[in-house]
Amino acid sequence: MKQSEVKAYRQVASAYLDRVGIVLRSEEKAGLEVTDFGLGEFETTGLVLHTYVNTERVCAKELVLLPHQTCPQHLHPPAGGEAGKEETFRCRWGAVYLYVEGESTSSPQAQPPTHRRETYTVHHEIVLRPGEQYTLLPDTWHWFQSGDEGAVVSEFSTRSRDEADVFTDMGVRRLPDVEA
Amino acid sequence: MKQSEVKAYRQVASAYLDRVGIVLRSEEKAGLEVTDFGLGEFETTGLVLHTYVNTERVCAKELVLLPHQTCPQHLHPPAGGEAGKEETFRCRWGAVYLYVEGESTSSPQAQPPTHRRETYTVHHEIVLRPGEQYTLLPDTWHWFQSGDEGAVVSEFSTRSRDEADVFTDMGVRRLPDVEA
Repeated sequence: MKQSEVKAYRQVASAYLDRVGIVLRSEEKAGLEVTDFGLGEFETTGLVLHTYVNTERVCAKELVLLPHQTCPQHLHPPAGGEAGKEETFRCRWGAVYLYVEGESTSSPQAQPPTHRRETYTVHHEIVLRPGEQYTLLPDTWHWFQSGDEGAVVSEFSTRSRDEADVFTDMGVRRLPDVEA
Repeated sequence: MKQSEVKAYRQVASAYLDRVGIVLRSEEKAGLEVTDFGLGEFETTGLVLHTYVNTERVCAKELVLLPHQTCPQHLHPPAGGEAGKEETFRCRWGAVYLYVEGESTSSPQAQPPTHRRETYTVHHEIVLRPGEQYTLLPDTWHWFQSGDEGAVVSEFSTRSRDEADVFTDMGVRRLPDVEA
């Protein structure tokens, strides 16, 4: 992504967080992580993240999604000699449609991005509205998409090791790749 | 504490959380944990807690403190075959004065409850206002008190094992003791 785009999306995400009442310091807002997962279509597949803490044992983040924005299918394998990342998503604002392993939901609320549909293989739907949450087991496939208004989601987890994450879509690169 | 008091303080704490924009479901509000640490003076020494998740690996909570309410000095020792609880406090609203091991602060913002002062032995002050946070190492003494308006604090940590916590004040009983 271009640095100008990253800055613009940081401002958009900051406005979401302000609206929800989540206070970030100015340097935290300026450091928000904006990722398009290397796919070059941020508003379709992307995420803005603030990481409160990520120690050897504990991680906590806020995730901001634009309307109908998708975090692509991935899992957190065992890494660093321990089980994979365990994460709990808690919806703070908007709606999140989370898809996990299990029986496919017959009329899901969200659809994968059409041109990448073949990289989405799990279709058991969990709907999260404000005040609702779901805990994902490590090493299990999942993806999620926000609803009409976008979403703010808190994530409580073990250590994040982005470099270890496995994505179904071979085009995904999770680590930052910001152009000047 | 009497059940009627527990209910009343749950309502007070719910109002704090509503004001900050933290959405709890009605059954979560009804289940808020109200503790006076067994000392029988809740508004001096006490805490209201909501636990989002507490698995073998991860815990996340919201803490609500009335004005000048104190969480008494304690530490989290090694337990269950692993290092003690590691916790990060993030102030969401109000102010929190956190006291940890280290050089005593000469003019601290808060004072321990006078009649229990001898059970407070660490006096290095960390001031947390909204958007500020601090990560405590396991197995280290700490206590905290809110400011004039009370406080709402998020806690991100490894598993909570309240039964393992060690308090300086021998009168403290952390586990619930609710009377009819």
